[in-house]
Amino acid sequence: MATWLEQEIRSQPDLIGAVLDHELTHIGQIVRDLPSFQYVMVAARGSSDHAAIYAKYAWPALGGYPIALAAPSLHTLYHAPPRMAGALVVGISQSGQSPDIVAVLEEGRRQGRPTIAITNDPASPLAAAADHVVGLHVGREQSVAATKTYTAQLAVMAAFAAQWSSTPARLEELRRLPETMAATLRGTDALAQRAERYRYMDGCVIIGRGYNLSTALELSLKLKELTYIMATAYSSADFRHGPIATIDQGAPVLLIAPSGDAFADVLDLAHDVRSRGAELLVISDAPAALALATTPLPLAAAVPEWLSPLITILPGQMLALRLTLAKGLDPDVPRGLHKVTKTF
Amino acid sequence: MATWLEQEIRSQPDLIGAVLDHELTHIGQIVRDLPSFQYVMVAARGSSDHAAIYAKYAWPALGGYPIALAAPSLHTLYHAPPRMAGALVVGISQSGQSPDIVAVLEEGRRQGRPTIAITNDPASPLAAAADHVVGLHVGREQSVAATKTYTAQLAVMAAFAAQWSSTPARLEELRRLPETMAATLRGTDALAQRAERYRYMDGCVIIGRGYNLSTALELSLKLKELTYIMATAYSSADFRHGPIATIDQGAPVLLIAPSGDAFADVLDLAHDVRSRGAELLVISDAPAALALATTPLPLAAAVPEWLSPLITILPGQMLALRLTLAKGLDPDVPRGLHKVTKTF
Repeated sequence: MATWLEQEIRSQPDLIGAVLDHELTHIGQIVRDLPSFQYVMVAARGSSDHAAIYAKYAWPALGGYPIALAAPSLHTLYHAPPRMAGALVVGISQSGQSPDIVAVLEEGRRQGRPTIAITNDPASPLAAAADHVVGLHVGREQSVAATKTYTAQLAVMAAFAAQWSSTPARLEELRRLPETMAATLRGTDALAQRAERYRYMDGCVIIGRGYNLSTALELSLKLKELTYIMATAYSSADFRHGPIATIDQGAPVLLIAPSGDAFADVLDLAHDVRSRGAELLVISDAPAALALATTPLPLAAAVPEWLSPLITILPGQMLALRLTLAKGLDPDVPRGLHKVTKTF
Repeated sequence: MATWLEQEIRSQPDLIGAVLDHELTHIGQIVRDLPSFQYVMVAARGSSDHAAIYAKYAWPALGGYPIALAAPSLHTLYHAPPRMAGALVVGISQSGQSPDIVAVLEEGRRQGRPTIAITNDPASPLAAAADHVVGLHVGREQSVAATKTYTAQLAVMAAFAAQWSSTPARLEELRRLPETMAATLRGTDALAQRAERYRYMDGCVIIGRGYNLSTALELSLKLKELTYIMATAYSSADFRHGPIATIDQGAPVLLIAPSGDAFADVLDLAHDVRSRGAELLVISDAPAALALATTPLPLAAAVPEWLSPLITILPGQMLALRLTLAKGLDPDVPRGLHKVTKTF
């Protein structure tokens, strides 16, 4: 019997199809109904924050709207919420329970701004605070580590971007995604064996850029939650501004390098850290990047870069699962964590 | 002869006084001259980005303006800059050279938005792209690792917040700061001996919240640049959403815990990670927090929390310096880094 985590990882292609069936038209309606706004303020924590960071690229690139990530402590600790004139206020939370995220949406409503909740629980406090509620429709997530709720949040953020773009081709690209997700998961079977190599790794660096900064951050969180490895994520640009000094002989570096406009920059960094002695793990569809890796983690096919975070995370999730098992740990219940984290 | 890094760390109290003498009135004039705007878009990388993260709390809390941190790759890689209607556009860069940061300001100007450059080089491309230029006035920074330019950037961000607050008491608090900075540096002499304990530490976690998330991020970068330790920074809230699982017996955790509204939350986390076996290093003025530490790093006095990042970073910088020397490394020239990093 597979663990909950493995079942939930494998369920994602079907579930993303279901999310789109349920919400794509609804999101189109929300986009048409929204009053005018100039920028978007997004409140989220943990994996949901990584979905927000994906939107920080997808929403401006396809819809033109800049994103400000909220500082919830302004609301809960400092009692000094900002003026939100011009903002669309969005909260993302699997549980819809975290009081600090709810506080940002409630303040948006108090200031008369439009509000949207993206949550797996339409009966949650977050949903109650919002004008519009977008559900994730993935059923209950049994594993403490988020997988299917994360990709469902990405799909919702991608659906908003596609609707704002008013370009039918973007909607078509989105609808074709579950097929590539399924094929990519089928390509991860060799990881059960391959993960053995990293059994005693105690830290690693994970690098993405642009759209896939979200993937680097989310994979780093999965490895920390599940394997207790000190995995640290960076954009390739920020990595060059100092942290690259930590790389020496044998340092494990995992690169998120799908085809697209950020590819050349990440490939350039791959050569640089290799010359400093790093051992590379590479998630990519591009042979030129995979060829540099001690451990290649291939994607089944290229997808448009703006959607690539929905497939690049999959070999990463599976690597985290396999490494958890190789270390003799329980993938479903990481030590000292609970499914719902309430922060103030 | 002390290293450049040590000289630059010790020069900060005097230099911050000089920055305020040069720029406080000028910043008041800029604030009065700016056209109306609804939010602020800030572009920065590395240490400058940590000054931006400080402003993400100080500018809304004292001035009411929300901050959106720019995604420079939208400009340089994706050629899809966002619509900036409603934005004040600010670039922060010690050198003023990084093309991706310059690109954000140039786009702001192209869209007719007000622009401000904060830089140590008023002849730089960043300065040329801005309506208003605020200098750092700290002279050339010889060490690759930023110290005096970082605190000068913090002082500039604090000066904007104080001017927006229109509260003379805030300006007075700012002017009194150099004295507490000097006293705090005098209290770090014991660190030369104390740093020995961490000679073979290969990673650590650094935690701050609210205003001092900036300090956690900046100190983490200093340790990575100078000592090649895998130091990872979190807000105490985000740390509870997963990464806390990595803490076990003996794990070193450095807490930034000055008095103020975020103190109770960080203290609560201190008790939690201690119960998981962590060894604490604590930067604080509060005896209740220092008493939990294996290595207390005391601040000379409490300052208003909104200014505390200008003093909490000082024992951290000195710890990074002492640990670099304990490891036999050169504090002035970290391996594989250059003073000016140009990213696209």
